[in-house]
Amino acid sequence: MSSTEAAKETGRLETFADGVFAIAITLLVLEIHVPEGGEDLGAAILAQWPSFAAYVISFLTIGVMWVSHHQMFTIIRRTTPTFLFLNVLFLLPVAFVPFPTALVAQHILDPEGRTTAVLIYGAVSVVIALMFNVLWAYAYRRGLVAGSAGEGGLRVSLGFLTGPLAYLAGTMIALINPFISMAIFFGLAIYWMLPGRIPSGSG
Amino acid sequence: MSSTEAAKETGRLETFADGVFAIAITLLVLEIHVPEGGEDLGAAILAQWPSFAAYVISFLTIGVMWVSHHQMFTIIRRTTPTFLFLNVLFLLPVAFVPFPTALVAQHILDPEGRTTAVLIYGAVSVVIALMFNVLWAYAYRRGLVAGSAGEGGLRVSLGFLTGPLAYLAGTMIALINPFISMAIFFGLAIYWMLPGRIPSGSG
Amino acid sequence: MSSTEAAKETGRLETFADGVFAIAITLLVLEIHVPEGGEDLGAAILAQWPSFAAYVISFLTIGVMWVSHHQMFTIIRRTTPTFLFLNVLFLLPVAFVPFPTALVAQHILDPEGRTTAVLIYGAVSVVIALMFNVLWAYAYRRGLVAGSAGEGGLRVSLGFLTGPLAYLAGTMIALINPFISMAIFFGLAIYWMLPGRIPSGSG
Amino acid sequence: MSSTEAAKETGRLETFADGVFAIAITLLVLEIHVPEGGEDLGAAILAQWPSFAAYVISFLTIGVMWVSHHQMFTIIRRTTPTFLFLNVLFLLPVAFVPFPTALVAQHILDPEGRTTAVLIYGAVSVVIALMFNVLWAYAYRRGLVAGSAGEGGLRVSLGFLTGPLAYLAGTMIALINPFISMAIFFGLAIYWMLPGRIPSGSG
Repeated sequence: MSSTEAAKETGRLETFADGVFAIAITLLVLEIHVPEGGEDLGAAILAQWPSFAAYVISFLTIGVMWVSHHQMFTIIRRTTPTFLFLNVLFLLPVAFVPFPTALVAQHILDPEGRTTAVLIYGAVSVVIALMFNVLWAYAYRRGLVAGSAGEGGLRVSLGFLTGPLAYLAGTMIALINPFISMAIFFGLAIYWMLPGRIPSGSG
Repeated sequence: MSSTEAAKETGRLETFADGVFAIAITLLVLEIHVPEGGEDLGAAILAQWPSFAAYVISFLTIGVMWVSHHQMFTIIRRTTPTFLFLNVLFLLPVAFVPFPTALVAQHILDPEGRTTAVLIYGAVSVVIALMFNVLWAYAYRRGLVAGSAGEGGLRVSLGFLTGPLAYLAGTMIALINPFISMAIFFGLAIYWMLPGRIPSGSG
Repeated sequence: MSSTEAAKETGRLETFADGVFAIAITLLVLEIHVPEGGEDLGAAILAQWPSFAAYVISFLTIGVMWVSHHQMFTIIRRTTPTFLFLNVLFLLPVAFVPFPTALVAQHILDPEGRTTAVLIYGAVSVVIALMFNVLWAYAYRRGLVAGSAGEGGLRVSLGFLTGPLAYLAGTMIALINPFISMAIFFGLAIYWMLPGRIPSGSG
Repeated sequence: MSSTEAAKETGRLETFADGVFAIAITLLVLEIHVPEGGEDLGAAILAQWPSFAAYVISFLTIGVMWVSHHQMFTIIRRTTPTFLFLNVLFLLPVAFVPFPTALVAQHILDPEGRTTAVLIYGAVSVVIALMFNVLWAYAYRRGLVAGSAGEGGLRVSLGFLTGPLAYLAGTMIALINPFISMAIFFGLAIYWMLPGRIPSGSG
């Protein structure tokens, strides 16, 4: 297969992945409902703060995932049917994010359900971060990565490992205080958005 | 028309198809509703297992369709208005998948409705698999396939035929036991995700 | 501006338009609701036939619009900010299609509301077909069309004019019988899907 | 990094942004509900005019944002991880637009809530316009802009500044009359759609 064909294959995988990322991130707004209003619409909207907070945290989290996926693919040159399927398996929990987001938004003010809601939210994030490492490990070992990125590759591998560990720690904290747990998920998204935090084999 | 223009045409068809695949696969999550919770949110979520199972099966099934469509287009070089329309007809049942998915999720625990729900779910899968063969047969006979893929082409043709037959068999089993039927649909998706199962003219 | 930059501009316009087409066509399924079921789920689903019929007609209609837009852009080489905005104005009624589709699905069996519902459905189709001619007229007069397509261009212009007239006639018939009107919209989509019906400057 | 790789990076950012724009603009229609009808379906639909007006205003506003983003990227050649994240932050309020749109549609006829609804609608527009300037300022200062566009760049910078000011003025007017405020937002979208109004470094 020529390099042009290979480039085309990666292009379509990225288009599909970008579509799923873009749709999942945009569907988040559908979970925010317009309040009836009555006397004080402003107060009714402020009372929905968990929906807005969950929207921002999940939007930034999916955004970080998208940038990471994007950066990973700047050094991936080829693809295989198995790699396409691994990407489908990676996108399965990504597309699922609107559910735990709505779960947390609706139950974070409910003392009995909030721990369960945040544990599920965190578990989905851990699964996504793990799948991210599976994607990279497969691409790296099967030689789908651009040759010149070999040295950076190992550094990238170690960098990606911090994701699942950080999300696992954040999730465990929900057993003590679910609010701190969500604050950590917010902080993690901000942290990875700072310059130089996303591992990049080309940098 | 130059080869560049032809490539551009295929590109846009793939972009549109990828969009429909990505949206259909991501809309599946909208069918999963957040439970009210009450005393035990965890138990309420576990009771929704049919929704999660249907999400996973349909996600993987659409994922397999996307990879198959992707692989088919690695050897399709040109397009015609009729081929564009055949793709629209192929995408019609693909975009419809969220409906039978929600149907099965809501009725698999209902002894009176579950057989009907799974029969409809399976019928949609059979139609998609048939349309897939129509797409390929048209592209192959009208010479839209890259010349070098001619020998692999016949092998591909036979490989695609197993799809409708497998889904038809899985659907028929719903008359005996709808749960086994859904398990077969799950198994078929996993089977096609194994290395080397998707027919490929370039391999 | 170099020809490469111009091509890039058209590419992004097509990506955005394809996105709106793909999303509008895939959102149609959200208007079909899963019946409660009760004793006879099959009968409950059959009673929803207007939803399925409206889904198929709107899916094919949007599909025809997409293929027409695609064919038009095979001979459009450049773009201008005004042309981008005309495309936004063209996409406004396209993205609106899920509303009249749901309107017809819910009111076609209602003797008092069905005429109004189908008149609105038809009016949206007329507007889309008119906007299609506006797009083409602007592109043709402003020289955005590839030079070699000049002769075919006039033929294309005349071909596109049949769209608004056909949809207007179909809409008017709703005043006599809304069912015949919807059957005409279905027939028009099938007609344009037949080989050679979509005007093409390159054929 | 070669220029080809850089082009690929920008391409994927544009694909993702186009996806979010296309989805946000197409989700707007989901906020318009089909009326029950009863005796006079036409009157029931006319009574929904705020939903239709809000649909048109938000559709045109997102359309203007998309064209502006498109025009900006015709002269942006490179990207950095930080620029990707700034685009994610820019898309956060863009994807949020369906919420204030539904808020205005449901409360513009409610004398007690309409001012709050339009203030929130306007505030989201101001934030988007501000983020647009942040995007441009970063790209311009970090040298992501094509060299030949340097002279036009300063003109572009000044042109983009009018956006936040115009939306802020329109928002303030909601304190006097929310209807005039919405009319201004409509007028702003139309104004920027006129030829030559969108700043362009290449024109």
